[in-house]
Amino acid sequence: MSGIDFQKFGLVGAGLVGGSIAARLARALPDTVLLVHDASPGNAAYVAERHPRSERVGTIAPLAGCDAIFVATPVATIAEQVVTLLQLPNSDALIIDTGSAKQAIVAAVATSGADAGRFVPGHPLAGGISAGPGRASGDIVTARPFVLTPTESTGAEALAHAKILLERLGAEVVEMTPDAHDRLLALGSHLPHLIAYALAGLGTDEPGDLLPASYRGIAAFAGSDAQMWSDIFRANSAELKAAMEEFKKRLDLIAAMADEPVPGVLLETLTDAKARIDALENEE
Amino acid sequence: MSGIDFQKFGLVGAGLVGGSIAARLARALPDTVLLVHDASPGNAAYVAERHPRSERVGTIAPLAGCDAIFVATPVATIAEQVVTLLQLPNSDALIIDTGSAKQAIVAAVATSGADAGRFVPGHPLAGGISAGPGRASGDIVTARPFVLTPTESTGAEALAHAKILLERLGAEVVEMTPDAHDRLLALGSHLPHLIAYALAGLGTDEPGDLLPASYRGIAAFAGSDAQMWSDIFRANSAELKAAMEEFKKRLDLIAAMADEPVPGVLLETLTDAKARIDALENEE
Repeated sequence: MSGIDFQKFGLVGAGLVGGSIAARLARALPDTVLLVHDASPGNAAYVAERHPRSERVGTIAPLAGCDAIFVATPVATIAEQVVTLLQLPNSDALIIDTGSAKQAIVAAVATSGADAGRFVPGHPLAGGISAGPGRASGDIVTARPFVLTPTESTGAEALAHAKILLERLGAEVVEMTPDAHDRLLALGSHLPHLIAYALAGLGTDEPGDLLPASYRGIAAFAGSDAQMWSDIFRANSAELKAAMEEFKKRLDLIAAMADEPVPGVLLETLTDAKARIDALENEE
Repeated sequence: MSGIDFQKFGLVGAGLVGGSIAARLARALPDTVLLVHDASPGNAAYVAERHPRSERVGTIAPLAGCDAIFVATPVATIAEQVVTLLQLPNSDALIIDTGSAKQAIVAAVATSGADAGRFVPGHPLAGGISAGPGRASGDIVTARPFVLTPTESTGAEALAHAKILLERLGAEVVEMTPDAHDRLLALGSHLPHLIAYALAGLGTDEPGDLLPASYRGIAAFAGSDAQMWSDIFRANSAELKAAMEEFKKRLDLIAAMADEPVPGVLLETLTDAKARIDALENEE
């Protein structure tokens, strides 16, 4: 590890989250250098423009000399990129990824046999609805907690340095296991998007101007990037299905209450759900 | 029928929708009189204040002399109110209700044996998320279509007069069968709210500040009035369950795609759903 005197950064993946990281680096640590690599020259050039001392690189090799590297590619390709970076010769770079499903990434990196001591799995929770660098903003790093999910392989020093770096960027860091993260995201993000895609597939025979606001409001989450969500559903399919089964049971339970002879049970259940949502909204 | 020279209106139920109707009458037909009846003196007084020539009445009997009466009570009590109004002596008032589940109301009125020729079942689709007169606005009548669901019992003249009246109030009138209405609302409004209540019941073990925007955005619909939604789920439970079963099948189908060896099927399905939602949003 090259310590906490971060001078030179690497970024692999110049999409929504990568663009936000570049913008945040430019603002919080303006004297540092950023090397940007992305398969799309357009994306890489866009992000490079947002950081005054950044440089686009055509291959991943030049990142070996960085103090810290962020991997913000689509979730399906993150593990491969992390393993390649870990195996670059003469590199002691800290590596932080931003994928929204952690167990699959952590497992694939472990299976590769690479020494993963320098790799700190992460996920900025504000990594939003739509993909692509055009929506990028420093807010994605700072607006919501930045979760880190260290494993037994993660070096204590790497974890400590990752926390220091993210806090310098203005992030609130929260630590949890990859399993806990994936369950939280399955319930809180992946299932809601699955719900939106399922609902959006049902309403097309109805005249659009007759579809009520609640249908539109929920199905609107299916307007997200299909490739990104296809990757996420596949990467976290086990936890997603577990959350979905719980959700389906809950649907059945409430629907059954609608047929009970007395209305009290249904009313109590809906009142309880409303109280939880009101409490959540009052927290903000 | 007293014709289309509407001079005197009745309103039973001074909640969100009733308040909107009063405000709209005051604006579109300012020289007419409005008699308001509600079990809650507070609600009735509030709505009466919004219409310059309105008067609160303690019983339903004085409404007999009205040209047209709107019934906007909670959905569970609408049929009973309509039957009472139909049976008032010496009344030829047009009666329009605003309940968001039509089959149960129409069936209960038919079972009563009352002559339902003057009754035109209706539903303003903008009858929104939250209940209570404080949120009432003329927009609920005009912002979205006002659906009428005539049956074999509905008189042709009553239907024609109801359309004329609603159009004078600025509403866009759409006609469909009670069955088609209840299927549309089950899919477009009742199922989305059931989804919100089910999701809101699942997330409480997670720390609130870590729950992503999509969870919050969908579960927020469970912040609606629990009593109103309990009534609606019960009134339309058969169609709600049918829509729910279709939705659960769709959830299973998409979730199964996440485990297929090649990602193409899932991606195609999500892309298709996104296209439908984009098209819906572009319609507005």
